[in-house]
Amino acid sequence: MRRWPLPWQAAAAAAVGLALAVEALPSVLRWLRGGRRRPRREVLFFPSQVTCTEALLQAPDTRPSPAASGSPSGCQCSLPHGESSLSRLLRALLAARASLELCLFAFSSPQLGRAVQLLHQRGVRVRVVTDCDYMALNGSQIGLLRKAGIQVRHDQDLGYMHHKFAIVDKKVLITGSLNWTTQAIQNNRENVLIMEDDEYVRLFLEEFERIWEEFNPTKYTFFPQEKRGH
Amino acid sequence: MRRWPLPWQAAAAAAVGLALAVEALPSVLRWLRGGRRRPRREVLFFPSQVTCTEALLQAPDTRPSPAASGSPSGCQCSLPHGESSLSRLLRALLAARASLELCLFAFSSPQLGRAVQLLHQRGVRVRVVTDCDYMALNGSQIGLLRKAGIQVRHDQDLGYMHHKFAIVDKKVLITGSLNWTTQAIQNNRENVLIMEDDEYVRLFLEEFERIWEEFNPTKYTFFPQEKRGH
Repeated sequence: MRRWPLPWQAAAAAAVGLALAVEALPSVLRWLRGGRRRPRREVLFFPSQVTCTEALLQAPDTRPSPAASGSPSGCQCSLPHGESSLSRLLRALLAARASLELCLFAFSSPQLGRAVQLLHQRGVRVRVVTDCDYMALNGSQIGLLRKAGIQVRHDQDLGYMHHKFAIVDKKVLITGSLNWTTQAIQNNRENVLIMEDDEYVRLFLEEFERIWEEFNPTKYTFFPQEKRGH
Repeated sequence: MRRWPLPWQAAAAAAVGLALAVEALPSVLRWLRGGRRRPRREVLFFPSQVTCTEALLQAPDTRPSPAASGSPSGCQCSLPHGESSLSRLLRALLAARASLELCLFAFSSPQLGRAVQLLHQRGVRVRVVTDCDYMALNGSQIGLLRKAGIQVRHDQDLGYMHHKFAIVDKKVLITGSLNWTTQAIQNNRENVLIMEDDEYVRLFLEEFERIWEEFNPTKYTFFPQEKRGH
C-alpha cells in the first residue's frame, strides 16, 4: 500500500477539512470554552400580567430552577402563579451572584425593590445610580435601598438620568424603555432586552462607571439649579 | 494505484472535514448570502454634542457616504460639523429605502421630524405609533407628520405607549431609553441600541403590528378615560 503521496481524494479531503477548520475555529473554541449553550437573549414586552412573585422573592436562594419556576410553592394567594414579564425580569436579576449595577430613572416597584435587597443580603455588590428628581417621590424604593446599606448615587445636573438598565455579574445587560414602577409594569407598553453579550455589557458598564464617578457624593451641592424639560 | 478503499489518512481527513463542514455550515451560508460583513451593532449614548445636521437633512439622498460624513458640505453655521450621537441616529434612520416603523412615546425633535418627512418624500413607507397624551403637546412633530400624509396611530387606554423604537427596512432595530425630544437628546443621560438582528427585528415588528392593529382609528372614541400614572 502506498503511504506517500496520498491519493488525490485524500489530499482534497484534507484541504477541504483544513479550510473548514479555519472557518469553524470560532465555533469550536466557543464549544470548547463553554459547551454549545447559546448566550441568553430574551425580549420582554409589557404590560405584564399580574402574577404572584412570592415564590421568587421569599426563597433563600432563588436560582432559576423548576421548583421556583412558577409553581405555587406554598403561596395560597388568588393571583396566577405562572410566568410573566415581571417574573422573568425578577429571575434575570436574581441570577446575580457577584455584582449588580443599576442605572434607573425611576424605581418604585416593591417587587423589584425586594429583589435588589435580597441580592444585597446575599452578598452581591449592588450599586445604584438614579435621578434626583424621582428618588424622593412617594413610593420610591431608593430610600429603602439606602437604609438597607446599598450604595446609591444621583445626578445634580440639568438633564435627567433617564437610563433604565441593569448589569448582572458583568455578563448580562438588561435594558429598555421600562422604568421600574408598578404603573409602567402593569399599564404601559414597554420593552426590556436581556442580553448576555460581552460587547454591550462592556459599553454599558463603561457608561455606568462614568456616571458613578461623575455622581460622586463629595461633589454634591445643596439646592442645585432647577431642572428643565423631559 | 489503489482507488478503494482510501488509506486511513484519507478517511480520517474526510471524516474531520465532514464534521467541520457541519459545524461551519451556518458561517458558510452567511458568507454565501452576504459576504463576511458583520451585522451592524452600535450603541449611542446621550446627551449628544450639538452638531450641525444640515448636510444630512438637506441632501436629496443621504446615503452613508464620506461626502456626507460630517464635512461642512457648504453649511456656514457656527456649530461643529463632526459626528455626534444625534447625527449617527439620523444616519441610521436615513438609511431606510423601503419601510420605517416608529413606535415613540414622545416625538418633538425637529431634526428627527425632518428626517422622517424626508424619508416619506422619498417613497419610504412610514408608519408611526405614539402616545395620545404627548402627541398634542406644544412642539410635537406628530401633527406635522400627519399633515405631510404620514400614517399615525395612537393609544386611547389607561397606560402609556412608552416604547421608543424604530425599525428600518425590517432589518435594523433602533431602541433604547431616548424619547425623540431635543431636551432628551441634548440634556439627558440616554442610550440607543442600533442592531441589525433578525430575531430582535422580528419580535419588535410583531409588537409594532399588534399595537398598530389595536390602535386602529375605527376603534377610537372621543373623550376617553383619564390616564393614570407614569
